[in-house]
Amino acid sequence: MKKLKFGMVGGGEGAFIGAVHRAAAALTGQMELVCGAFSRNHDNTLHTGAQLGLPAERCYASWQAMFAAEQQRGADAMDFVVIVTPNHLHFPVAQAALEAGFHVMSDKPATFSLEEAKRLRETLSSTTLHYGLTHTYAGYPMVMEARQRIAQGELGTVKKVVVDYSQGWLADPTAQGDSKQAGWRLDPEQAGASCCMGDIGVHAAHLAEHVCGLQIEQLCAELSTAHPGRALDDDGMVLLRFTNGARGMLNASQISVGEENNLSLRVYGERGGLVWRQEEPNTLHLKWPDKPAELVRTGWPYVGTQGSAHTRLPAGHPEGYLEAFANLYAAFATQLVGQAQPGDFVCPGIDEAVRGMAFIEATVASSAQNAAWLTLA
Amino acid sequence: MKKLKFGMVGGGEGAFIGAVHRAAAALTGQMELVCGAFSRNHDNTLHTGAQLGLPAERCYASWQAMFAAEQQRGADAMDFVVIVTPNHLHFPVAQAALEAGFHVMSDKPATFSLEEAKRLRETLSSTTLHYGLTHTYAGYPMVMEARQRIAQGELGTVKKVVVDYSQGWLADPTAQGDSKQAGWRLDPEQAGASCCMGDIGVHAAHLAEHVCGLQIEQLCAELSTAHPGRALDDDGMVLLRFTNGARGMLNASQISVGEENNLSLRVYGERGGLVWRQEEPNTLHLKWPDKPAELVRTGWPYVGTQGSAHTRLPAGHPEGYLEAFANLYAAFATQLVGQAQPGDFVCPGIDEAVRGMAFIEATVASSAQNAAWLTLA
Amino acid sequence: MKKLKFGMVGGGEGAFIGAVHRAAAALTGQMELVCGAFSRNHDNTLHTGAQLGLPAERCYASWQAMFAAEQQRGADAMDFVVIVTPNHLHFPVAQAALEAGFHVMSDKPATFSLEEAKRLRETLSSTTLHYGLTHTYAGYPMVMEARQRIAQGELGTVKKVVVDYSQGWLADPTAQGDSKQAGWRLDPEQAGASCCMGDIGVHAAHLAEHVCGLQIEQLCAELSTAHPGRALDDDGMVLLRFTNGARGMLNASQISVGEENNLSLRVYGERGGLVWRQEEPNTLHLKWPDKPAELVRTGWPYVGTQGSAHTRLPAGHPEGYLEAFANLYAAFATQLVGQAQPGDFVCPGIDEAVRGMAFIEATVASSAQNAAWLTLA
Amino acid sequence: MKKLKFGMVGGGEGAFIGAVHRAAAALTGQMELVCGAFSRNHDNTLHTGAQLGLPAERCYASWQAMFAAEQQRGADAMDFVVIVTPNHLHFPVAQAALEAGFHVMSDKPATFSLEEAKRLRETLSSTTLHYGLTHTYAGYPMVMEARQRIAQGELGTVKKVVVDYSQGWLADPTAQGDSKQAGWRLDPEQAGASCCMGDIGVHAAHLAEHVCGLQIEQLCAELSTAHPGRALDDDGMVLLRFTNGARGMLNASQISVGEENNLSLRVYGERGGLVWRQEEPNTLHLKWPDKPAELVRTGWPYVGTQGSAHTRLPAGHPEGYLEAFANLYAAFATQLVGQAQPGDFVCPGIDEAVRGMAFIEATVASSAQNAAWLTLA
Repeated sequence: MKKLKFGMVGGGEGAFIGAVHRAAAALTGQMELVCGAFSRNHDNTLHTGAQLGLPAERCYASWQAMFAAEQQRGADAMDFVVIVTPNHLHFPVAQAALEAGFHVMSDKPATFSLEEAKRLRETLSSTTLHYGLTHTYAGYPMVMEARQRIAQGELGTVKKVVVDYSQGWLADPTAQGDSKQAGWRLDPEQAGASCCMGDIGVHAAHLAEHVCGLQIEQLCAELSTAHPGRALDDDGMVLLRFTNGARGMLNASQISVGEENNLSLRVYGERGGLVWRQEEPNTLHLKWPDKPAELVRTGWPYVGTQGSAHTRLPAGHPEGYLEAFANLYAAFATQLVGQAQPGDFVCPGIDEAVRGMAFIEATVASSAQNAAWLTLA
Repeated sequence: MKKLKFGMVGGGEGAFIGAVHRAAAALTGQMELVCGAFSRNHDNTLHTGAQLGLPAERCYASWQAMFAAEQQRGADAMDFVVIVTPNHLHFPVAQAALEAGFHVMSDKPATFSLEEAKRLRETLSSTTLHYGLTHTYAGYPMVMEARQRIAQGELGTVKKVVVDYSQGWLADPTAQGDSKQAGWRLDPEQAGASCCMGDIGVHAAHLAEHVCGLQIEQLCAELSTAHPGRALDDDGMVLLRFTNGARGMLNASQISVGEENNLSLRVYGERGGLVWRQEEPNTLHLKWPDKPAELVRTGWPYVGTQGSAHTRLPAGHPEGYLEAFANLYAAFATQLVGQAQPGDFVCPGIDEAVRGMAFIEATVASSAQNAAWLTLA
Repeated sequence: MKKLKFGMVGGGEGAFIGAVHRAAAALTGQMELVCGAFSRNHDNTLHTGAQLGLPAERCYASWQAMFAAEQQRGADAMDFVVIVTPNHLHFPVAQAALEAGFHVMSDKPATFSLEEAKRLRETLSSTTLHYGLTHTYAGYPMVMEARQRIAQGELGTVKKVVVDYSQGWLADPTAQGDSKQAGWRLDPEQAGASCCMGDIGVHAAHLAEHVCGLQIEQLCAELSTAHPGRALDDDGMVLLRFTNGARGMLNASQISVGEENNLSLRVYGERGGLVWRQEEPNTLHLKWPDKPAELVRTGWPYVGTQGSAHTRLPAGHPEGYLEAFANLYAAFATQLVGQAQPGDFVCPGIDEAVRGMAFIEATVASSAQNAAWLTLA
Repeated sequence: MKKLKFGMVGGGEGAFIGAVHRAAAALTGQMELVCGAFSRNHDNTLHTGAQLGLPAERCYASWQAMFAAEQQRGADAMDFVVIVTPNHLHFPVAQAALEAGFHVMSDKPATFSLEEAKRLRETLSSTTLHYGLTHTYAGYPMVMEARQRIAQGELGTVKKVVVDYSQGWLADPTAQGDSKQAGWRLDPEQAGASCCMGDIGVHAAHLAEHVCGLQIEQLCAELSTAHPGRALDDDGMVLLRFTNGARGMLNASQISVGEENNLSLRVYGERGGLVWRQEEPNTLHLKWPDKPAELVRTGWPYVGTQGSAHTRLPAGHPEGYLEAFANLYAAFATQLVGQAQPGDFVCPGIDEAVRGMAFIEATVASSAQNAAWLTLA
């Protein structure tokens, strides 16, 4: 099998998320990194590329240079570009990549604003190129299983959704927009309109919509900052009304001290409920009104098509975050080579990008209006 | 030790909660049931009393008759009365008992309305009698421990509170106000202004305030009914602002199918966090920013004074709901005999009664105003 | 309902287990303490009795005096006696009680030796009196459920049994036979042939046999002491061969530092397996070869007859050790009043007493022969 | 950084474990597959190689051919060979590889017999080549942490070890030596002297010795087969005496129906205890005699050097089996390039190979002597 070839924008030495994308891509066994513009600093790019085994001539001084040069390489060129820059560059890089004819795999959030996300959607609509967005949690087999079971009606009509994403890394009151701990996430210039909602609230909202197959129609949000001096929210609580009338709550917090990456989803339908926790991702709890709760686990023959297709190991051999990430890459690859079948898991893309930005902006606006109910377009 | 003597109003054959109160009282070893008006039906009262080993002459035809007759018995009379009637009788029975000179232990919610709760408080303020309210969950040793640790500042200033009380018993769409499953809880005539908030939301609110030592200052609520035809809410979600500026969320649901009595509390302060789950009540999770999470357990020497005083067994011998209930009774008894010391656990009383009714009414009013922020008096 | 009347031998002030028996009896609501010989020290007995509300004339100077006096009271006499003395008195007190015509509820281990247990069985065989032995763990509803499901064949033929009882209270090397921490349990004069096997190993063996409905046919044991200077074992590991050919392992340890009362049982049959843990007693895990594991929980309609009959509260309201203990007392009461029905849960009795002593003595003998396989009579 | 180059023997299409090794190697980012003799069937090898992107000329007809050809390539040759053949070929392939001058990474068990393992050790002792053995579980960060904490004396002298490895895949009575389910593991010709001990018991023994830094000195084993017709054990229970006098139990079972890959280790010392469970590998439980139990988690700054060096993601982002496997490869690579520092985690090697084979053979011999105590050389 010929491997897909990709380039990377961002992800130079010292950048964490670039390494995660590269490890996920490597795990698929279906693709290889062939070029990069890893940093504004060309020395960093050259050094990073050398460590990754790339020839110097494909370690470009800028992403603009990379797109131009790779276009010239013909069959030898990269097939797609991975964008792992700071947020405010996601949009211009993605636009340029698409215009240069390259597929795009973008880290999340998709853009800096809803407006940009919509423009990106327009650009895509005029091409046959693919766009993937790494809403990682959709890549866990038990999330796929949850989604499939709900889609098949096992829980009946969904009535209540509770999603919670609690972290503690901003609990320290000395973390500010310019501090080492907080990085750029508390700086509106770099992070956008929201810290907590933009960073993790949007993951929680995507997970809820994705698993339930529903959309958030209205929301009412209370964003807050736990410590004086912070320009952006570090905590947010959102009441939700879904398109089918279901109610929901979303909690996203970066000041829940001691919490790691505690994302959980609970969905209750008329006939059954489910619970999934990211920190124990290989188990899906099913709850029933009249029989014992069940523990659905990755790797068993009873698991549905998507969850089974994206499990690498027998039951009891834990798979984690990188594997989920790799599942997004694998699905994206399947789409690129035109082998996706109906029913296959599909990597989140431009529609999720637009909805995510709409969610973030709506929570900020609702909170600014003292938690008024707002309608998501 | 002379045992305290109590009578019971309500709790006749077929009434569940009366048996719980009697078992809790028995567990203390400090009190005995001496009389009762267990039912409007005197035959039921006589039969119940006989089963409980009471002489027929102290199985009264009415609570009015019981109060009158017991007053005549002097030293032999009951010391206090336990009220386990349907909600709408809580207030008149409690008022009459106090007027007749008997202490009162009341099932929750304290009254039918905030107005009644305030009147009861007035009545109490003119006596030296005691009033206890069975907010059961306060009786768990690890809840006492959580409260003591927060009061001692172990977590620093509380910043975020998440309380969740999920049950599934009203998930069945055929449960209505007059159905066997739902009993009277969906009937406004019997249950009051709210089903879910009045039944379990008020427990969650009490737990949050009690453990944190804070009060809910403002709230914004979305109550809903999952199934058409229900006159009262079966689900409610509330955003909270506490007196110290902390933010919070309260979820109470009776339609979370498959859930049993899943009450949990999470509190995050500046320096530490804690998690307690009612279904695993003997463990208190402590979370820290810089060291491993800890599992505080009942029965260890390191547990604080209140939790230790209300633990009966060595560590690893589970204690449960009845024991917590008994702890309220034991604390109440200590108060009655005048042996309570500063720092002792105190049974919830009239202040909690008033706050509980204020909470219920505020959630109903906020929800009626499309989740407007309202201030609790 | 007329309450059963019982007296108690042992359980004076400062004796823990007597209070547990009294609380369990109180929880049943079916019996009352009417007399006692709580201590060799009559002042202690009088003081204890006074605290428990007993008249002085029924606080006897000795158990011999108690049996003689109560025999004279006729219909007013106690119905049964509870024995909570140190181990070496279990046998003589039980013998005397039976000879005086009283039923016996005994703390475990039943006797000091297998020989005594057999003599007690002979005594019983010549009367119509009842004898109960408080193998507490049999009283948990989920243990009853496990036993019923295995008896009904849900797991198929049992193939493998793993039972583990780990405590840590003897981990401290300074605990010796005469130390405060270790009490009398490390003293052969008071504890008998074994510390760890006699105290907790026998519980584990009973639980395994009871739940599986099988008997241990052969065993091979390695008992040891973790710290020099101890006269008895503080740890023991036993390989088991059951009557049906199933294999098993039993671990009992009092030096597993940090463990509380960590008793667990795992049973694997041809068609399914189960796991029960005493520290989370309201859950029974069922494991299957071809479908998701199930969490069977107390209080659900699907629970079998015995577990349901011995559950007091709705699902999600934890019941614990005292409730399990009370279930033994309730079953014993049912037997005493002659209302036990086929299929009812039966309190462990003299057969379990004999098997328990046989197990203890066999482990000691096997270990003395360097873990030779021995056959239990 | 120049990547290490490796070839693979075994792991053709349809062979599961080869894919695991390749994924683990890919995850390190430090090495690449350059050649293979994936199958006896050259077509399979060619096809597998093509799928993996290898040129046909490096897809060899036999491992003998591969070693010969690669020796000729000089600087371009593979650096090491990965052996993922059936067990009986591990030894001859490893011997030949070493003789041809290639480092060896071998799947476990190392050889077919203790004798072979010793011969391999001799061969190695005459070279400067490296030999790695994939005792996967040693690669988990929390296993490294457990080992480091014990080595630093945090638990004091180890007194008791309980290791349990329960699987259920051989619970089906129709699985026999020639059946599809059981593969070759129940066939003595292919599996060696033991099924259960050779497959998983040896992992459990290694984990216990590795974490405790102790050796098993004596053992007493009961191996059994749950179903008639099986030539090898499917279950084994072993009592252990360690070099420092500590006692232990090892349970390994393939008939524990419903269990997946349930490996757990509990170690109790004089001052503390620990529990680790493979199915929740990112948590290490620490237990203390006088303070709350602690949950040590991957990704926190307090984790020791080895665990931290082998963690890829922030806390709360689960890492699993493949990551642990990759950690062995990464450590092996560090050794190959001569950059290992004192205190670094070292991949299990030839000493573990010899001890593992000695353990397997001793359990078989002990069981054949009715669980006699045998001494491991």
